[in-house]
Amino acid sequence: MTSSETPPPSDAPRPVVDLPVGPGPDGTPDLVALTAALCDLRSVSGEETALADAVEAALRRAPHLEVLRDGDAVVARTHLGRGERVVVAGHIDTVPVNGNLPTRLVVEDGVEVLRGRGTVDMKGGVAVALALAVELDAPVRDVTWVFYDHEEVDSALNGLGRVARHHPDWLAADFAVLGEPTAAGIEGGCNGTLRVGVRVRGTAAHSARAWMGRNAVHAAGEVLRRLEAYSPAQVEVDGLVYREGLNAVLVSGGVATNVIPDLCVVTVNYRFAPSRSVAEAEAHVREVLAGFDVVVTDAAAGARPGLDHPAAAGFVDAVLAVTGGAPAPKYGWTDVARFSELGVPAVNFGPGDPSLAHHDDERVPTAQLRSVHEALRRWLTA
Amino acid sequence: MTSSETPPPSDAPRPVVDLPVGPGPDGTPDLVALTAALCDLRSVSGEETALADAVEAALRRAPHLEVLRDGDAVVARTHLGRGERVVVAGHIDTVPVNGNLPTRLVVEDGVEVLRGRGTVDMKGGVAVALALAVELDAPVRDVTWVFYDHEEVDSALNGLGRVARHHPDWLAADFAVLGEPTAAGIEGGCNGTLRVGVRVRGTAAHSARAWMGRNAVHAAGEVLRRLEAYSPAQVEVDGLVYREGLNAVLVSGGVATNVIPDLCVVTVNYRFAPSRSVAEAEAHVREVLAGFDVVVTDAAAGARPGLDHPAAAGFVDAVLAVTGGAPAPKYGWTDVARFSELGVPAVNFGPGDPSLAHHDDERVPTAQLRSVHEALRRWLTA
Repeated sequence: MTSSETPPPSDAPRPVVDLPVGPGPDGTPDLVALTAALCDLRSVSGEETALADAVEAALRRAPHLEVLRDGDAVVARTHLGRGERVVVAGHIDTVPVNGNLPTRLVVEDGVEVLRGRGTVDMKGGVAVALALAVELDAPVRDVTWVFYDHEEVDSALNGLGRVARHHPDWLAADFAVLGEPTAAGIEGGCNGTLRVGVRVRGTAAHSARAWMGRNAVHAAGEVLRRLEAYSPAQVEVDGLVYREGLNAVLVSGGVATNVIPDLCVVTVNYRFAPSRSVAEAEAHVREVLAGFDVVVTDAAAGARPGLDHPAAAGFVDAVLAVTGGAPAPKYGWTDVARFSELGVPAVNFGPGDPSLAHHDDERVPTAQLRSVHEALRRWLTA
Repeated sequence: MTSSETPPPSDAPRPVVDLPVGPGPDGTPDLVALTAALCDLRSVSGEETALADAVEAALRRAPHLEVLRDGDAVVARTHLGRGERVVVAGHIDTVPVNGNLPTRLVVEDGVEVLRGRGTVDMKGGVAVALALAVELDAPVRDVTWVFYDHEEVDSALNGLGRVARHHPDWLAADFAVLGEPTAAGIEGGCNGTLRVGVRVRGTAAHSARAWMGRNAVHAAGEVLRRLEAYSPAQVEVDGLVYREGLNAVLVSGGVATNVIPDLCVVTVNYRFAPSRSVAEAEAHVREVLAGFDVVVTDAAAGARPGLDHPAAAGFVDAVLAVTGGAPAPKYGWTDVARFSELGVPAVNFGPGDPSLAHHDDERVPTAQLRSVHEALRRWLTA
């Protein structure tokens, strides 16, 4: 090893990675190369600094952007005095890498796909946003580009939530697009989620003298019976139909194999349409489980799709002109609900099949990178 | 500290404790003092050696007894050529001590009781047997006195089971009395016990898209429904009525609060009358839970009460003359089932309320020590 090859000591400043955000030979951004570069610069939740530095550096080279930073969240925005401001946001962290990096560009069944951790959730969406942020120096709407950390871990650490607490003005907007994977379709709003613990009590006894006790697990059968008999609603909200769900997700009872259980706890998760408030959702669960001891353990409101908002109309038109697909409801809870809480209607729109998120073999069709880029470009420039 | 008070080094042979087995001032054994001495010489399962040594030493001083030893089990027997041989047996270990030693002799509500670990389960019964073993040099029946270890722990360690494997001839008899606490009543035989795991499977899915899965916990509701609807039988066996029981003792399902469970396991305990074999019990449980995946995890046959056996008649008469109480069925599984397996009819008969066994405040009325002693003495001498 020669001295010039010696790596710097670990406490030396790490050089900032130069991301390929500029146009390729054909004059358009090379979204595949950019997605690959974003993925290959690993950023498992809590280790986003190197990637945040690289994103910040790329944005600072664009003179039309004001660049702000909070922790490992980077915000860039135009100030063109447009009548409308929109947010385009995405998280830069991933779930842990599991032998699925570096990325590989392959053709499968005639389709070009980029494979590897983060390609779906959600560095494909980050690549599209970053390329557009640099590329669009005069969008017809003022744009706030948000790249944030800690989305894949405990909600209390979420970088978007932190920015909302520290600098709510950074997120002020008429409409927001979150680049979570939707296979390049518009998924509006999201269901809310409520969890309750149902504690069913009995009286312990030796199982050899069961008649001296009262079996809490048997009594919990009634809870399961009601859940099994329950028909979840399908609720139309702002033109989209949300499927609800009411499910036991955990059950636990008993202390030993010779004791009649005196306690059985059923944890129930209610996914409810965004037209219901958390309080309404709780009241509904209490009604279904009337007579049982129900304790709410956590809850998060959903988000209305907001597609009836004037600011959304242009977005939907631009996307449909490119993809042809109708908007659909989003079922999983996502950070669009944080925008909803701030009073900003928001939708999910990004490349990648959402059912592959967190899978070790996540992979994004490169055509989706281009169609999402094209749809957003049209919306912001038409 | 003077040199004469220095304790011996820990690897020196420990002096054997001298138990007060002899008659008191009134010519009868001081059962309270003996029970207290047996309890105060702690013998939590696995630590019975000092007590076994003391019991062995006391028995060896009685010239009418042959004394045998296997591990910490001590067996003493007469060889008088009687036409009948009976076993009187008891375990010398206890569950862990919890601040409830040394014993205390107190009067509560006008009743003299000895309090402390082991007073009920079952050093009161051991005291009665040990006193009689030494006292009765010419019983009308040959007697084999058995004091054994490791009853309160894993059945595989049980000292009586070990003696049965190593020296089955030591336990040969026409009838056996086990001194487990029965509040000085005769409790005949015992129910059998069978445990099964019922594995209910489903299909995992994100709870936001519950309709893509199949909820195993909901499906397990049917198992609980059948158990709740089940009416346990009352079965008469040899004149005693055994109450059965079929109960879920454990239930567990689900892996996370946002996942539709794909597995729910219900552990079911069937306590069945001694007229049923283990195979019959298993067939019955499979019938009740038809359609579910049932796996037997452990099983032990019960024991018929054996009160219709000629050797039992004299025993019942002698006891009833003292206590006046009718024989009752024993519900919990006890080591009488081991005698039953060896073809020896057996009953439980001992001082102490069985519902206080293992309780930190276990306590035996001293009058029960005397009545059990008197009943056994009559039976063995009349």
